[in-house]
Amino acid sequence: MRLSQYFLPLLRENPSEAQIVSHRLMLRAGMIRQSSAGIYSWLPLGLRVLRRVEQIVREEQDRSGAQEILMPTIQPAELWRESGRYEDYGKEMLRIRDRHDREMLYGPTNEEVITGIVRDAVKSYRDLPKNLYHIQWKFRDEVRPRFGVMRGREFLMKDNYSFDLDAAAAKHSYNKMFVAYLRTFARMGLKAIPMRADTGPIGGDLSHEFQILAETGESEVYCDRRWLETDILAEELDYDSDLEPFFRQWTGLYAATDEMHKPESCPIPADQLVTARGIEVGHIFYFGTNYSKPMGAVVAGPNGEEVPLEMGSYGIGVSRLVGALIEANHDDAGIIWPESVAPFRLGLINLRPADDKCRAAADDLYGKLSNIGIDVLYDDRDESPGAKFAAMDLIGLPDQLIIGPRGLAAGNIEHKRRRTGTRQDLPLDSVVQQFARA
Amino acid sequence: MRLSQYFLPLLRENPSEAQIVSHRLMLRAGMIRQSSAGIYSWLPLGLRVLRRVEQIVREEQDRSGAQEILMPTIQPAELWRESGRYEDYGKEMLRIRDRHDREMLYGPTNEEVITGIVRDAVKSYRDLPKNLYHIQWKFRDEVRPRFGVMRGREFLMKDNYSFDLDAAAAKHSYNKMFVAYLRTFARMGLKAIPMRADTGPIGGDLSHEFQILAETGESEVYCDRRWLETDILAEELDYDSDLEPFFRQWTGLYAATDEMHKPESCPIPADQLVTARGIEVGHIFYFGTNYSKPMGAVVAGPNGEEVPLEMGSYGIGVSRLVGALIEANHDDAGIIWPESVAPFRLGLINLRPADDKCRAAADDLYGKLSNIGIDVLYDDRDESPGAKFAAMDLIGLPDQLIIGPRGLAAGNIEHKRRRTGTRQDLPLDSVVQQFARA
Repeated sequence: MRLSQYFLPLLRENPSEAQIVSHRLMLRAGMIRQSSAGIYSWLPLGLRVLRRVEQIVREEQDRSGAQEILMPTIQPAELWRESGRYEDYGKEMLRIRDRHDREMLYGPTNEEVITGIVRDAVKSYRDLPKNLYHIQWKFRDEVRPRFGVMRGREFLMKDNYSFDLDAAAAKHSYNKMFVAYLRTFARMGLKAIPMRADTGPIGGDLSHEFQILAETGESEVYCDRRWLETDILAEELDYDSDLEPFFRQWTGLYAATDEMHKPESCPIPADQLVTARGIEVGHIFYFGTNYSKPMGAVVAGPNGEEVPLEMGSYGIGVSRLVGALIEANHDDAGIIWPESVAPFRLGLINLRPADDKCRAAADDLYGKLSNIGIDVLYDDRDESPGAKFAAMDLIGLPDQLIIGPRGLAAGNIEHKRRRTGTRQDLPLDSVVQQFARA
Repeated sequence: MRLSQYFLPLLRENPSEAQIVSHRLMLRAGMIRQSSAGIYSWLPLGLRVLRRVEQIVREEQDRSGAQEILMPTIQPAELWRESGRYEDYGKEMLRIRDRHDREMLYGPTNEEVITGIVRDAVKSYRDLPKNLYHIQWKFRDEVRPRFGVMRGREFLMKDNYSFDLDAAAAKHSYNKMFVAYLRTFARMGLKAIPMRADTGPIGGDLSHEFQILAETGESEVYCDRRWLETDILAEELDYDSDLEPFFRQWTGLYAATDEMHKPESCPIPADQLVTARGIEVGHIFYFGTNYSKPMGAVVAGPNGEEVPLEMGSYGIGVSRLVGALIEANHDDAGIIWPESVAPFRLGLINLRPADDKCRAAADDLYGKLSNIGIDVLYDDRDESPGAKFAAMDLIGLPDQLIIGPRGLAAGNIEHKRRRTGTRQDLPLDSVVQQFARA
């Protein structure tokens, strides 16, 4: 993409409304614009990151055997009356009346809708297990939306729902998602610690939140000091195998959210305990028959008896992750994208577009890199070198290639790694090959 | 995908609520389920088609130079007051009050939001032209939602908006979309005739609807008889060239919607005129400064003067297209997907899963086809051959491969083309090669 044609409205000044770095940088880098309180439009650069995050989430769901569906944003109130949550949910639920005065709502979560679908479609234990996910916009009418996409009102969430015949099978489904979540966050270069968590308005018996430690985290979290030195790897596991040993391994080190941490019963000594701030990026729940029983979601069991479905639900904050990624990856100059979610792989800067040789070399390199499928953002604008360096650092693409008249005379271009700031000259004719391999 | 594990709730009976064939077949083939009136959940098979349609739309938008963004579903009423449409829009607009009693709405279209974004971001004629699209759920509170996804309340639409300095440049943007739309529908195997159309609540001077002729179409349309014999091809054009000759060529044959057709001034003789029913799948508008003037979306022109932006907007009904595709592609047995939008490329039927040789051959073929990246739906269920044939015809994948003990003994499997019904035996060991080439 040529920057001269790209819709990328950069801001020079820090917007006064942004209190945290990710919100500030997303506005400055032209990724988002606020539409109303807690509601954002995603501009081209931001949408590219959102889609890459979404795609990693999708791939790991698919790998685990979950199947993608898409439920609507607007739900009927009557389903929520069946589960008993309509009156309980409170003011965070955006309640709507349509032209026929029917009560509707903008879904904050989808336990009721999916249970309604499955109870009509799944009649026999032979159709189990099922795990259905969707990636859809949700709405929670936060009283004080803030921190940009980190605590917005309209937000993109991956949520899924598992249906099993009994508690043991449901725990296996829970373990699958536990593994999938560790893999998902690890692929984004994020260390998301699974913490024993409260089940809140979803209800249930067992729950883990996946928390990224960050100063700007909204909640207090507690964990064993050894978590700070532990890398979480995107291990490849057989989802049909017994995942309980893996689950025990990764829940063996103490970690708990504020609601679950009780100093008097904490199993580790105080000097081993770290208190930190956390950003919640995922949350998994096992809640048995809490929805299937009141809503009548039953199957015929092996002996013909009616069995209420054992369920779990699992959420990842896809739009929030974009903010969380920036909280975890930035410096004073701007964003530093991990390669797996970068909006473009490479930034190409032509320092002197008015110079025929520079333009020819930059155009040629841009064409060749694009032709082999590398996403390049090509700064061909008529701007000062300083403005171009600042813009490229702000946007935070992993690698920058810089073409100027001096280097070009020697057959070289400059390569800068955004994360380390290291610079080196590369022979111009080796560049395509080098990035084709990478 | 193994059908034994797939979430595909087929219906044997015709659902009584479905009046038209696409609605009936989408329910029977397990593509969608109604959540409330005019609001649907997309199940795995339906979502696959929706995503393929969406991807063709996206690729043709990208090819035309439009850039993808994503605006939220919930919009502030105040923006619509600026354009003057808030009071005018009527009961189809879903109006909402949030917890602070602020007036919001579920966007039925996005002229106001995009104009708000662009007026803040684009300050100079040098930043033009811009064409921004998004693919997002919309809501129109139809008084009588019907025909399934063809006239739903919550629906997926691609809409985009062009911004130019003057009328001539804006017409070029209009022509680009005209070309992109012909290409988009042609790639789906649909003949969508561009018809002179009324501008309705969007307003403006110039407008075309893209209509598919079908008995179940909702509106009456009029066109030159020669349209019936004319193929619309997905011609590859240079979007930077003068597109006016192409536009004139494809608007030269008479075609008009009900609102625009005046028998007394119709330019073609009555015996050359066809009256038919049409399904609208796209609509393009040029409306000049109708939004930019009241909303103050201006740029500095070449001489520093303030120039209001010349705008157009363009819509494709993505979810509606799934229904329209079925209206145009079905027989008594079910759906017949064009290859470009088929949910799976191939259906593989194992007639005798209990037979070891059949199972080994079918599993092996499924693995090999999947490994080379072909999407296969593999019917490995313990069902009668009749039920399997009926299910596969209903789902409508372009090609079926049928493995049974008799053919297998001769080293053959049966290949059936869904559209033509032609069947032939293929040597089992040639199948992978044949479909790898296709």
